[in-house]
Amino acid sequence: MPDKKPHVVIVGAGFGGLNAARQLSEASVEVTLIDQNNYHLFQPLLYQVSTAMVSPSEIAYPVRSIFRKQDNLNFRLTEMTGMDPKNQCVKTSTGSIAYDYLILAPGGETNFFGLDSVAQNGIGMKNLDDSIAIRNHILKLFELATQEDDPLTCQALRTFLIVGGGPTGVECAGALAELIRLVLIKDFPGMDFSDTRILLLEMGDRLLAGFPEDLAERALKTLEQKHVEVRFGAQVTNYDGTHVRLKDSEEILTSTLIWAAGVRAVSVLDKSGLDQARQGRVVVQPTLQVPGYPKVFVIGDAAYLEVDGKSLPMVAPVAIQQAKLATRNIQHMISGQPLEGFQYQDPGSLATIGRNAAVAEVKGFKFHGFAAWLVWLAVHLFWLIGFRNRLLVMINWAQDYIFYDRAERLITPDGNPRTQDRPWPEDNAIVEEIET
Amino acid sequence: MPDKKPHVVIVGAGFGGLNAARQLSEASVEVTLIDQNNYHLFQPLLYQVSTAMVSPSEIAYPVRSIFRKQDNLNFRLTEMTGMDPKNQCVKTSTGSIAYDYLILAPGGETNFFGLDSVAQNGIGMKNLDDSIAIRNHILKLFELATQEDDPLTCQALRTFLIVGGGPTGVECAGALAELIRLVLIKDFPGMDFSDTRILLLEMGDRLLAGFPEDLAERALKTLEQKHVEVRFGAQVTNYDGTHVRLKDSEEILTSTLIWAAGVRAVSVLDKSGLDQARQGRVVVQPTLQVPGYPKVFVIGDAAYLEVDGKSLPMVAPVAIQQAKLATRNIQHMISGQPLEGFQYQDPGSLATIGRNAAVAEVKGFKFHGFAAWLVWLAVHLFWLIGFRNRLLVMINWAQDYIFYDRAERLITPDGNPRTQDRPWPEDNAIVEEIET
Repeated sequence: MPDKKPHVVIVGAGFGGLNAARQLSEASVEVTLIDQNNYHLFQPLLYQVSTAMVSPSEIAYPVRSIFRKQDNLNFRLTEMTGMDPKNQCVKTSTGSIAYDYLILAPGGETNFFGLDSVAQNGIGMKNLDDSIAIRNHILKLFELATQEDDPLTCQALRTFLIVGGGPTGVECAGALAELIRLVLIKDFPGMDFSDTRILLLEMGDRLLAGFPEDLAERALKTLEQKHVEVRFGAQVTNYDGTHVRLKDSEEILTSTLIWAAGVRAVSVLDKSGLDQARQGRVVVQPTLQVPGYPKVFVIGDAAYLEVDGKSLPMVAPVAIQQAKLATRNIQHMISGQPLEGFQYQDPGSLATIGRNAAVAEVKGFKFHGFAAWLVWLAVHLFWLIGFRNRLLVMINWAQDYIFYDRAERLITPDGNPRTQDRPWPEDNAIVEEIET
Repeated sequence: MPDKKPHVVIVGAGFGGLNAARQLSEASVEVTLIDQNNYHLFQPLLYQVSTAMVSPSEIAYPVRSIFRKQDNLNFRLTEMTGMDPKNQCVKTSTGSIAYDYLILAPGGETNFFGLDSVAQNGIGMKNLDDSIAIRNHILKLFELATQEDDPLTCQALRTFLIVGGGPTGVECAGALAELIRLVLIKDFPGMDFSDTRILLLEMGDRLLAGFPEDLAERALKTLEQKHVEVRFGAQVTNYDGTHVRLKDSEEILTSTLIWAAGVRAVSVLDKSGLDQARQGRVVVQPTLQVPGYPKVFVIGDAAYLEVDGKSLPMVAPVAIQQAKLATRNIQHMISGQPLEGFQYQDPGSLATIGRNAAVAEVKGFKFHGFAAWLVWLAVHLFWLIGFRNRLLVMINWAQDYIFYDRAERLITPDGNPRTQDRPWPEDNAIVEEIET
């Protein structure tokens, strides 16, 4: 009987899972990659879908296309529903899958910190559904505003609230400001834009907590130049779809709450039986193995590992570097060699705040303004998978840059239940809520 | 008191409404254009969205962008819900709109001819939701098939049924055949494609009823070369989601029924109080006025007019030419001149059946094969609104042509309730249905 090749199961086709699968292309293993979507999503540009800058297919790429030439890989479109590490199998919505080695790279999801009203009436920023829903929602509100006479309803329709001053919130606020003040202003010639507000709420006392402080200051100034109102020490406690209540009892009238204030490891891990640390992340050893289950590796947003006393950030470079180590350690285990520990090479930090403006820190060097924006552009284009996507995104960006235009201003169907029952097309809902 | 300009309300931003609005750009009137979508949809290419060839934003264009420079036009995103011709107003989901002149160009919708089971379990081909739903559905079924062992379920998953041998059905069948046999065959290397079937059912005894008979023969041959099974005299009587029943009691096992067998004027016209003829189309005089309501014009798919004893086809050229006449007649009425009657200039017929293959008839000249395909390509690119869309569609087509690839193979959220409860991700549903 010939030796059967070890079966490596990888859960998730994000940056971690994708790179793990690629690393194993020459290895003498059978790889099964599962994901609940048939595409790899370039999450750093989700906010550009939300702000009508690129189309969904420009930041998503079919998994099967990526792995067409990798003979030792099977893809299964299915959702992980749990696992049984004692019996070495992953449970999915289409049956159990047995593994010899498991790499869990299921990623993160929006963390509403138990604020049910926000989860129900706000919109997150972690997947394609969310982003399409935000785009549809914003464009619909402007349409509604043209047909609305009630001043309070108008105020709610034209106030856009973004919660969370990290890179996602900052980038989203900058892009939304430009969408409204450079593009939509041309689409709605009769409309008075002076009372259109974008608020960015941050609980702490500064933006971009992971960045050097002077760059955060730069980002704040740039946002303020774009008429984004940034508020610090602001904590949301409730949102009913039109009224946001803050901890200091202040109330803000808005039809839009975009929640960029928290991320956690995907909640299916809560049912995995594995030890979890903060944000639901699974505790791993420096080898990325789960204590007690040496054949289970966790990488990326789903893994909790401290390096120099600090937990690793939930960003793509961590996931990619961990993917390389996890696959190397699996090959070490197969060949009976000692395993290696994870060492993080921090490539720096980057955030863009719209046209010509970004902040970047690379190996101690700090950039801001146009130079940082060029760095940001180059890095993101380089990372986008596939020549075609790069070219199309470039066309959209060029059009946006040259013509102050956005190509993707379509209100298309979205599968997000949170936006299905929004006040459209019966616009009276808002008025009534405010009046009562 | 200065004279108030006459208010022309146009319902629908399809080919008819869009062109009517444009024609009035220099006229001394106020124009209100309403549509339930914020985009104009290039319907002739819907089947390319269904077959993952182009992305939705490449065949849809925001209405506000199109009319940015037209000062006398207001756009309202709203849905017509009825009308009151005696009091000269249109009812919408966001209130009533009074008009001096009304142009109804609301277009058509899928006609299921009262077959409720087909309406519920099949998918139409008349709007963007339908097309995205078809794309998602086809791609999901191939994913399901890789995880399915039951032979009967596999047979259902791999049988694709298109009903209707008109241009929509023929183009869809040709594009689907190429998607499967040129593209998906590379994405699913382990799969046996020999039992994948595409059936095109036509009730009559020939394809493309409006085309010359020899071109229809050509189309039939081309489809057969692409392994599409064409059946004539086949009439669907029931579809439960897995079993199609034909009038002769034959049963076909399929998870996919694409209904391209009928179109009717949008059903909101049934509540308009206006006289309707076949397919719910509103009877108009040669001037395009509604009898009894001289200030109401109906154009395009929604209008019923006979020319030389034949009703006009529901195609874009009719709508565009009627838009020109209706707006001219409104201006005649305003200036007190006699109205003109409609004369149709038939530009010919065109249908494509995939790579390098099309059939065309232009002013008595008949083309087929590569020459007709070039004509088709030129006409459609010329018609697509906006340079950008033309360029992007060209890139996608070129990629498809050169690399035998499809760029848009994403399963993304769709708003179609008919596909929300499809057997995914719990795949047992089909098996159980077949076993019982």
